[in-house]
Amino acid sequence: SFSVVALASSPCSVTGLPLVRNISEIPQDNYGIAGLSHMTVAGSILHGMKEVEVWLQTFSPGTQTPIHRHSCEEVFIVLKGSGTLYLASDSHGKYPGKPQEHLIFPNSTFHIPVNDAHQLWNTNEYDDLQVLVIISRPPVKLFVYEDWSMPHTAAKMIFPSFWDEQCHTEPKKDEL
Amino acid sequence: SFSVVALASSPCSVTGLPLVRNISEIPQDNYGIAGLSHMTVAGSILHGMKEVEVWLQTFSPGTQTPIHRHSCEEVFIVLKGSGTLYLASDSHGKYPGKPQEHLIFPNSTFHIPVNDAHQLWNTNEYDDLQVLVIISRPPVKLFVYEDWSMPHTAAKMIFPSFWDEQCHTEPKKDEL
Ligand SMILES: [Zn+2]
Ligand SMILES: [Zn+2]
Repeated sequence: SFSVVALASSPCSVTGLPLVRNISEIPQDNYGIAGLSHMTVAGSILHGMKEVEVWLQTFSPGTQTPIHRHSCEEVFIVLKGSGTLYLASDSHGKYPGKPQEHLIFPNSTFHIPVNDAHQLWNTNEYDDLQVLVIISRPPVKLFVYEDWSMPHTAAKMIFPSFWDEQCHTEPKKDEL
Repeated sequence: SFSVVALASSPCSVTGLPLVRNISEIPQDNYGIAGLSHMTVAGSILHGMKEVEVWLQTFSPGTQTPIHRHSCEEVFIVLKGSGTLYLASDSHGKYPGKPQEHLIFPNSTFHIPVNDAHQLWNTNEYDDLQVLVIISRPPVKLFVYEDWSMPHTAAKMIFPSFWDEQCHTEPKKDEL
């Protein structure tokens, strides 16, 4: 019928999503980041969440996030694989500075202190790293650093995030 | 040394917890609820989270939560087992009313609309139901119903929650 066709053709529509969803059937993509697979399990834009958002991400060997910070809370649960969390704990200086290295492993959990610059890296050369990620106050606004000595003020804002771009709605320029 | 003994003897102390923690080593308990195993993976009281909290809960066959509501958002991820979510979607009446039944299954996800009365039930008579639970704005304040026709105004407030009781700090009565 017409309505089924319409729903299937819009990846940004909340309407018609069942309350209980099979995670295996949620769309995933690398959103332009080689080695990444991202899936929004429960999201602000797609599912109407206002206070929490949940992602499932897989990093192939050698893949890393950019060095970045955000003002929301973030909790990780490592489902598979291992890797390294780089975390610059002192966010009070002018730039992140040399990060501490934390090994992460299957069935481990950690959270990122608000506004601390960090980077997740699959440093295991054989296995994928799969993590469940929980953030508060979605959608996330990222500030990305080129390296650990880049000033906080020079970090580049990315909003909407890579995976929110397609469905993020803002006033169209044509309408101004 | 003294400090190691002191840390080990206080289950409510954040001090000395490593940033990356092994989920298998996090304390779990039934907190007085037969058939439940609860673990706070990342919590307000124990880990200083302010905006999100993550639990790992296992329900043995036949075990259910009370019928309850809360004003925070809640996302579930079913890791193992199956069961039934009972959800009274219309929170605008005087009482929850007859709930809808939703089957939940391994690798499924769902979220509870804010303030809707709900109950999770391991209706599978053979297997444990294991879920990862994410809530916003911890610590949670629960309102518990005896049945689906109890008025919203009669629901009993439970705060702190069962698992937060031991470490929740409030002014001591002796000090008043
Ligand atoms: Zn992050
Ligand atoms: Zn609940």
